[in-house]
Formats: sequence, structure tokens, C-alpha cells
Amino acid sequence: MVRKPYLIFVGDASRSAVTKTAEGVRDWAREDCTGQWRQSPGATDLGLPDMAPAEAYAAGARSLLIGIAAIGGRIPDEWVPLLLEALEAGLDIVSGMHGRLSAIPEVAEAAARLGRSLHDVRHSSRSFPVASGRKRSGKRLLTVGTDCALGKKYTALALAAAMKERGVDADFRATGQTGIMISGDGVAIDAVVADFIAGAAETLSPEAAPGHWDVIEGQGAIFHPAYAGVTLGLLHGSQPDALVLCHDPRRTEISMFEGFPIRPLEETMETYLSLARVTNPDARFVGISLNTSGLSEVEANALAASLEAQHGLPVMDPLRFGTERVVEQALA
Amino acid sequence: MVRKPYLIFVGDASRSAVTKTAEGVRDWAREDCTGQWRQSPGATDLGLPDMAPAEAYAAGARSLLIGIAAIGGRIPDEWVPLLLEALEAGLDIVSGMHGRLSAIPEVAEAAARLGRSLHDVRHSSRSFPVASGRKRSGKRLLTVGTDCALGKKYTALALAAAMKERGVDADFRATGQTGIMISGDGVAIDAVVADFIAGAAETLSPEAAPGHWDVIEGQGAIFHPAYAGVTLGLLHGSQPDALVLCHDPRRTEISMFEGFPIRPLEETMETYLSLARVTNPDARFVGISLNTSGLSEVEANALAASLEAQHGLPVMDPLRFGTERVVEQALA
Repeated sequence: MVRKPYLIFVGDASRSAVTKTAEGVRDWAREDCTGQWRQSPGATDLGLPDMAPAEAYAAGARSLLIGIAAIGGRIPDEWVPLLLEALEAGLDIVSGMHGRLSAIPEVAEAAARLGRSLHDVRHSSRSFPVASGRKRSGKRLLTVGTDCALGKKYTALALAAAMKERGVDADFRATGQTGIMISGDGVAIDAVVADFIAGAAETLSPEAAPGHWDVIEGQGAIFHPAYAGVTLGLLHGSQPDALVLCHDPRRTEISMFEGFPIRPLEETMETYLSLARVTNPDARFVGISLNTSGLSEVEANALAASLEAQHGLPVMDPLRFGTERVVEQALA
Repeated sequence: MVRKPYLIFVGDASRSAVTKTAEGVRDWAREDCTGQWRQSPGATDLGLPDMAPAEAYAAGARSLLIGIAAIGGRIPDEWVPLLLEALEAGLDIVSGMHGRLSAIPEVAEAAARLGRSLHDVRHSSRSFPVASGRKRSGKRLLTVGTDCALGKKYTALALAAAMKERGVDADFRATGQTGIMISGDGVAIDAVVADFIAGAAETLSPEAAPGHWDVIEGQGAIFHPAYAGVTLGLLHGSQPDALVLCHDPRRTEISMFEGFPIRPLEETMETYLSLARVTNPDARFVGISLNTSGLSEVEANALAASLEAQHGLPVMDPLRFGTERVVEQALA
């Protein structure tokens, strides 16, 4: 569990591919963002107050959040004095980089001396049990996909927010680094040792009140040549009552895996369902979430109508169409 | 890669549940076993010459193999002086325990001082790439199952041996601790970080000559509530041309997971095939391997005949019926 609110470190990053984690946190956890710390005037402006660590701490911030990427995933040497400044000012550090904060001797030493915590959310320092397969009380919704990086996190966040707005007792459960930064908790499921994927997913959404919903961020895709093992372990451990299929209609191939076609939605949903029913015989799809960012309004509406007719499921786009009917279908 | 041949440490173990790894190594790698080291006359006799480390080293042994289990997977304190004696005598140590050899300070110190290697085969010290999904040259056979612990390793060992006997260039590829001890190499696939399961499987069976066969030990089961993620990553990364389904006809439920039925063979094979074809569109089943140890000769023959008729595939039992027709089906 990380300490909020955040001072978001932007450095001198300006490309959206580099700053998208920071932007995700700003979009979904605005109330948890005290300010931004930029190292150059050309750096991306998240629309948060500019401040340095001491000022941010005084304004209530408790962690510096490294929400930008760096080449090779390493923490650049020139960041080290900045990280030390943050620790001295009273802040913990939350990082989504591949390189570990604790592997930088000066940073590890300063954190230990000052009593600060270093959170490398891409790595898992916890150990998990082997999954039991036992049914847990409470309800669970899992977002699954036809590929990686097409809206599983945004869909889960939007559905959890919509449930809460209706007064449903619901929690977003994060399984990836950006999600963990947004919610302040979760498990980087792809960093867990293979034997414990489903066990980690069971731990992530523990027993809850019968009317409670965990809305779990999916990972990977069941027909993905590299990540399907993660997807399946997460599916089994989550024991979802409700599944939402996330899809980007412009994609014809698995992203960055040439020659691996996106399979038809029908086949994809049948495969997810047959595997999901190993741990929850009542699993069912309650909606399709489209990423229609590449389509016009007219095209998006036509596609949604056609998919609704074809699959008999409500279609949503977390950034365009409402989530209401998918939530209703889940609660029904 | 571990150094063979082995002195097998039996300690004072006498129950077959505890000594089965030692027995597996003795059965499948007899030529790699110099002797056994027993601490009490009541300990299991593997039928190997009894010897202590110094004598074993003189006779050619290069590693002490801990082929027995201990309660909780920890290395008992009373073994430490014995391990030190082995290191002093010139032997490396190969362990299949959960507890790491390198976590015992005296053992780690002695190994470093003497230049010996400590191999914890249950853990993976290597890092692996994300899977590429790219087709590799050479042929691959993977054993898959309806459950854990019903003969996937034995089936793969038997098929690799039968191929070699026919003059086929074939390698057994180990994915679990006993298999690694037998072959002297391999990857404990369930110990790999989740993101890299398929990548580790790609590394395990690299590009090879067109006529070469890798016979890969399967893990888990696709309908297993705890381990299916490992199974699927291994399936995708192995890109098998040929699959053999391993099954124990007495089992009705997943072992140790009450309430999780073994699914019909037809459904199981269809699910494996549809997922295998993500990375190898030509994947097909070439046989069924039965564990008929609980059946009489008459019952076993009747069951094999009935399954052959039903599925149109040759049926083998690595310990009872020949493997020939399955090998022929694979090579066809």
C-alpha cells in the first residue's frame, strides 16, 4: 500500500508514449495528485500545480510518483540527486520502472536512513500461496481482451466508478503498474512467479460481502503468443461472475506480433468462457468494451449497434458511450 | 548445466513419497549414478553401490544429488555437515528442495571457498526474454495432461528414448526438478516470472535441424485451477507439432482440488489444440498415454482399445504398452 497523495515526477519528458502513466494517474486519481515536478519548461504539463518536493510535502504530498518511462527501463543517473531531494523532503518514492529503486545504493541508503519507503510497483516483493480454487463470497467482474493495451484498465476503472455512483459497494483491483499507482494498491500480476499467478489473483480479490463487487483489471489476451499464461492464471484466480470483452476494432493483428491475427470475437468469448468456468461455472459475458478512438461518431455507433445485435450484449466505450447498460447487465 | 555423474543422497528416507525423485533419476539416468549415500541401514536401497563422498569422487562422481524430500521443503540442520563433507570431497550439490542451498551460510561459504557449484533446480536463476512467437526450425512434441502428476515426464522420457532407439535425433527437454536432475539441464518452468513463461519455453527448445525432435515435459493441466497459466505459457512457447495427452483413468477429480472434475478427453484435447494453434497452426495429437497402474492387464487392454476406437489415436502406457505406434504417428 503506497502513501498518497502524489507529487508526479515529469522530468523533461514530453512525448505521450513516455508520459502516459502520469496522465493515467492524473485522469483517474486527480484527487490524489498534489502537484507535478518538471525539470524543463518543455516538459508535458499535466495541468497540476508545479512544485518541488519540499513545497509538495508541505502541501500534503506523501510520495513522489515516477510516472514516466525511460529508455531501457533504467533509472537515469541524473535522476538520482532528484530522488534524494524527494526523500529528504519527506516523500516516499513510487516507481513503475523496470530498474529497481532499491538497486541504487545512494537511494536505498537514504531511504533506510530517513525511514522512507521505496515502491517498485513493477516488481512483486510479496509471496503468494498456490491457488485453492475455492469459491469466495462477493461478486467479481474481470475485463479481458482480444489483445494487450486496448482498454482493459480504463474499462475496469470506468465500470468501478459507475458502480460506485449507483451506490454499489465496489473496488477497482489493479493488476498492472499504472493501475497500482492509481488505486494505491494491487498486484503486478505479470511479475509473480508462474506457479502462483492464480494464487496471487485469489489474494487480490479476497472474500467480501455478498453484494460487494471487485472490478479487476485484466492482463494480456488468451490468444496472445507471449502473455496468455498470465491471462489464464488471472482468469482462474479471479473466478469472475461477469466478464467484459475489450476490443479495438482497428486491430487485425496482435500488437507487435506480426502474423498473429486477432481472432473473431465469438471464438474469443467462447474460449474465455470455457476456461473461466473451471473456477466459476456461472461466469458470463455482460458487455463488450470498444476502443473506438480511431472511428468517427457515426462509424462508432454503427459498429456498436452491429455488435450488440450480433452478440446480444451491451457495447460500451469508456471514453465515448456510457457504461450504464453494462453495469446493469452485471448487476442483473 | 549440472556436472554428472551423481552420488545420490538418500539420508534415512524410506517412504516412496519421499524418495521418488531419487528413484526417477535411478530409473532414467542409471548411467549417471555412481552410487548412493545412506545415513541408516533402514533407508531406501536404490540398488546402487553404497559410498561416502570421498569414495564417490574417486569413482568419478561430480555432484551430490539431493533426491529426497523433507518436511516443509526445508533443508534440515543435521544435513549441513553432510553437505559440507560432500563439498570438501570435490562434489557440487544439486538440490530439488524449496529451501535454497545458497541460503545456508556455511554451505554458501564452503562452496565459494572451494569453487563448487550449488544448483537449486526448483528455482530459476536465469532470466528469460518475452516470447517472440516466431516459428523455430526442428520438430517438437509436448506431453500435456488432464491433471498434474500422472505421467507427463515419464511419457516424454519414454518417447525421447524410443525416438533415439530408432535413430531419430531427439532430446528430452526437462521443465521440472526431477526432469532436470535426470537430463542435467532444463528450466523449472513454474519458477519463472509470469511474463516470461512462454519466453522460457522458447529458450528451452531452441532452433534445431529440420529432422531433430525436442520431446518436452509438460506441466500442470489446462483445466487445473491453480497451474493452468504455467501449462498455457509452456504450450505457446513450445510450439508443439505433436501433442500426447497423458491421463489416469482412475482419477475423477483434479488431485487435491476437491470439486474440480477431470473433463472428458475429447473436450480436453479440443481445448489444448485450439490454444496450441495460436503459435503452431499444424499442432495435432499423436497419441494418448495412460497411467494404467491401478488396472489389471485385461482392464488396461480393454480401455486402450476403447480409447483408440473413440479418438482414432494410438494409446500407450510408458510402463506397460510400447511407445512405438505413438512415435510412428509423430514421425508420420
